Amino acid sequence: MTSEPKSVLGRLYGVGVGPGDPELLTLKAARIIDAADVVAYFAKEGRPSNARAVVAAKLGRQRELTLAYPVTTEIHRHDAAYRGAIGAFYEEAAAQVAAALDAGFDVAVLSEGDPLFYGSYMHLHCRLSSRYETEVVPGVTGMSGGWSGAGLPIAQGDDVLMVLPGTLDEEDLAARFASADAAVVMKLGRNLGKVRRALQAAGKLDGAFYVERATTAGARTIRLADKPDDTAPYFSIVLVPGWGTKP
Amino acid sequence: MTSEPKSVLGRLYGVGVGPGDPELLTLKAARIIDAADVVAYFAKEGRPSNARAVVAAKLGRQRELTLAYPVTTEIHRHDAAYRGAIGAFYEEAAAQVAAALDAGFDVAVLSEGDPLFYGSYMHLHCRLSSRYETEVVPGVTGMSGGWSGAGLPIAQGDDVLMVLPGTLDEEDLAARFASADAAVVMKLGRNLGKVRRALQAAGKLDGAFYVERATTAGARTIRLADKPDDTAPYFSIVLVPGWGTKP
Ligand SMILES: C[S@@+](CC[C@H](N)C(=O)[O-])C[C@H]1O[C@@H](n2cnc3c(N)ncnc32)[C@H](O)[C@@H]1O
Ligand SMILES: C[S@@+](CC[C@H](N)C(=O)[O-])C[C@H]1O[C@@H](n2cnc3c(N)ncnc32)[C@H](O)[C@@H]1O
Repeated sequence: MTSEPKSVLGRLYGVGVGPGDPELLTLKAARIIDAADVVAYFAKEGRPSNARAVVAAKLGRQRELTLAYPVTTEIHRHDAAYRGAIGAFYEEAAAQVAAALDAGFDVAVLSEGDPLFYGSYMHLHCRLSSRYETEVVPGVTGMSGGWSGAGLPIAQGDDVLMVLPGTLDEEDLAARFASADAAVVMKLGRNLGKVRRALQAAGKLDGAFYVERATTAGARTIRLADKPDDTAPYFSIVLVPGWGTKP
Repeated sequence: MTSEPKSVLGRLYGVGVGPGDPELLTLKAARIIDAADVVAYFAKEGRPSNARAVVAAKLGRQRELTLAYPVTTEIHRHDAAYRGAIGAFYEEAAAQVAAALDAGFDVAVLSEGDPLFYGSYMHLHCRLSSRYETEVVPGVTGMSGGWSGAGLPIAQGDDVLMVLPGTLDEEDLAARFASADAAVVMKLGRNLGKVRRALQAAGKLDGAFYVERATTAGARTIRLADKPDDTAPYFSIVLVPGWGTKP
């Protein structure tokens, strides 16, 4: 770290880095990352951080702080053991960021997409924003990257748009698809088969698209009905465009 | 216009300029606007364009094309006369943009927030994208600007987020609020009183925030229950954060 600690507390920034393409960073995010003393990011234990990869070209001078999730895939996320482990992890992560802020360093916490939209940053925000000067820099979401890359108008006029986690159960998903004009399903992973069946039950499978790694070199869009398997990487999303009555 | 027409067709860009703060433009949007031959935008007849205002400092060299909405406030939007007038207007706007593309000029159509998220650009997109090389540049949405400025985590984990136009009727709004973990209401205008009553009926008024002109100098956030009146400018939104069980 080249900059010297200041006598006052550092500032906390939650910085959205957008959906993957480094050019989809905002001017403000670029400025704050460039000026930060410490750049922090969440990552799965032993894996590189996705958010860091987006801004890798801007790093070097800043100190980096990896907040590595404990391995949790063996425990179900509704399990008390999982909740305990993950709660302790967020406390520890917040303490590490707080230590840097106490030393007077400005800390930019990188977030995929938009920080307060299903992002891990919010676990730090709720623990630290009352104690430190905090600013959240919004980012382009993964879903916006997805429908833009595919050229799919998602919603217009009186359309109701629902954002659904793929973790919901099949009946719940089907009922919600049926009552929405447009829908986005995040967090597919092992849930894609279930999402497909729920769309079918709601009569909406034909209008659904599957998008993988939006805005990156590996981006791919396909009608979900044409996708031959139900495997889906972490960065994948289902889009059901609305806009039934195009004027 | 300083650049000369090219022998091939121009490229169409739908460019999201973000929620209002010029620094929330993406690097990609900035590059495309800088390089465009023609910059086009929708505006209400006789009023400046909001999207143009965000990038005003970048303009000068490019030819500008205003797509001015006919005055329509006297006619209800479900009226056949309105549908006819607005349909004809979009046809005419698309023809103007097409003329510039045919002349070989690259045209950047500016959009508030994200172009394919309740934006007018999509009326051009659906008429022109099959005929011209087209690229949509996603932007930071108004809602992301709103919850970031207010520091409100909007959704996490298994939360269902509903995006609702304030134009829906009161019973429909109330039922949807009741079934969502988190909600965003766009297009408030004359609908704020109705939105307030629907939130009250769903038992969610206490958790609702009203945000005006997010990310601009005139930005203001207030608990909706504390807002003494039901007036709301065009750039205003209601946010109901989810995240009931913060781990
Ligand atoms: C924990 S959420 C974080 C969302 C993020 N804060 C945002 O604003 O998009 C992760 C989910 O976002 C979606 N996602 C984010 N970026 C994506 C991309 N580039 N392509 C496809 N899906 C993406 C995927 O559904 C993924 O499971
Ligand atoms: C026609 S929609 C366009 C939405 C835009 N494409 C976007 O991505 O946010 C206009 C509505 O967006 C919301 N909106 C957009 N920008 C906003 C801002 N800076 N502050 C508050 N509301 C905003 C308001 O509810 C407004 O009525």
